[in-house]
Amino acid sequence: MPYIKVDNNLAGIRGLMAFRPETAEPMGALANVLLKDTVGLSPAERELIATHVSYLNDCFYCHNSHGAIACIYLDGDNELVNQVRKDYQNAPISEKLKSLLNVAGKVQKGGKHVTEEDIERAKKQGATDKDIHDTVLIAAAFCMFNRYVDGLAANTPTDLSTYPPRAKQVAERGYGNHIFSPQQPVAEKV
Amino acid sequence: MPYIKVDNNLAGIRGLMAFRPETAEPMGALANVLLKDTVGLSPAERELIATHVSYLNDCFYCHNSHGAIACIYLDGDNELVNQVRKDYQNAPISEKLKSLLNVAGKVQKGGKHVTEEDIERAKKQGATDKDIHDTVLIAAAFCMFNRYVDGLAANTPTDLSTYPPRAKQVAERGYGNHIFSPQQPVAEKV
Repeated sequence: MPYIKVDNNLAGIRGLMAFRPETAEPMGALANVLLKDTVGLSPAERELIATHVSYLNDCFYCHNSHGAIACIYLDGDNELVNQVRKDYQNAPISEKLKSLLNVAGKVQKGGKHVTEEDIERAKKQGATDKDIHDTVLIAAAFCMFNRYVDGLAANTPTDLSTYPPRAKQVAERGYGNHIFSPQQPVAEKV
Repeated sequence: MPYIKVDNNLAGIRGLMAFRPETAEPMGALANVLLKDTVGLSPAERELIATHVSYLNDCFYCHNSHGAIACIYLDGDNELVNQVRKDYQNAPISEKLKSLLNVAGKVQKGGKHVTEEDIERAKKQGATDKDIHDTVLIAAAFCMFNRYVDGLAANTPTDLSTYPPRAKQVAERGYGNHIFSPQQPVAEKV
C-alpha cells in the first residue's frame, strides 16, 4: 500500500504524478525528451537503457513498464528486452549500445563510477557527445523515477498483461498528461 | 575535464544544461517546484534535504551549491548546514525535519530501503502526505542531479568562495534560465 494517499485506480508512478501535478509536468516533459528523441539513439535504445537501469535498481513497475514500451518498438521481441535487462553483454545488439549500457550501469552505482575508459570505449564505438549525455541522463533520471516509485511504495500491478496496453499508449502518444487516465487497472500488488 | 564538450565558463550542472537546453528546461522547472515551494516544508528545509542527499552521494558540486543556498535562507548559519550534511541527528533542527532526513537518506540508498516505520515516524512528527511526497522526490531528484554532474565529470570549482554569489542569485530568482549565464567562474577543478 502506498505511503501517501493516492488514487488507487492509477498504477505506479501515475498515482504519484496525479497526487502532485506540479512536479509531474516537468518529469513527464523530461521523460519525453529523453525517451522519444530520435536523433542519435533511437527510442528503442533509449527505452532499453531505461529498462536495464530500472532492473538494476530492482524497480518492478519501471522495468516492466519500460520493457513493455521497448518491446513495442522492437516488434514484440520480448526475449531481446529480457536479455538486455539481465545479460546485455551477450545480447544481439550493437557494440555501441553495449558500451552505452556499460556507462548506464556505472551511473546506476553512482556518478563517480563512470571512468574515462568507459567513455573512450563508447566513443570508439561511434557514440557522440549527445549519445553519451543522453545515456548518462537517462540512467540518472531512472535512478530518480525508480526511487520515487519504490520510496513511496506506489501501487505495482504484478499481472504482466496489464503493462502492454499502457505501453502502446506511451509509444504512440508519448509521456503526456494522458498517463493520468485510469486505464491500467491496479490488480494485485507485489 | 568533462567527458563531453561543454562551455568551460559554466560550472557544474550549468555547463551540462547549456549543452542540452531541451532537458535543462524540465529539470530547472522540477527543481523550482521542489525547492522553492513554501507550502509545508520551507525552502531552507528543502535545500537542507538536497544538501544532505548530495553529501551522501559525495557530489562536491551539488552539496556545496545547495549548502550555500540553504545557508542564505538560514541567515548565514553555515555551521548548521554543515551539521545537517554530516550529523543531522544531533543538529538543532525539528524532530519532524530529522524524521524526513531519515527518509531522504533511505531513498538515497534505494527506494525499497524506506520502511513503513520510517514513514510512521515522520507522520507522528507532523509530516503531511505532501511533506513526505516532496521529501522522497527531492531525495530521488538529487540522486539524478548528482549522477548527472559526476557521471559526466562536470567542471567543479574547488574554491568555495565561488558558490555563495551563485547561491544568492538562485535564492532570489529561482532555478530559471539565468543559471546558464557565466557568472560563476570555473576555477580549479577537484
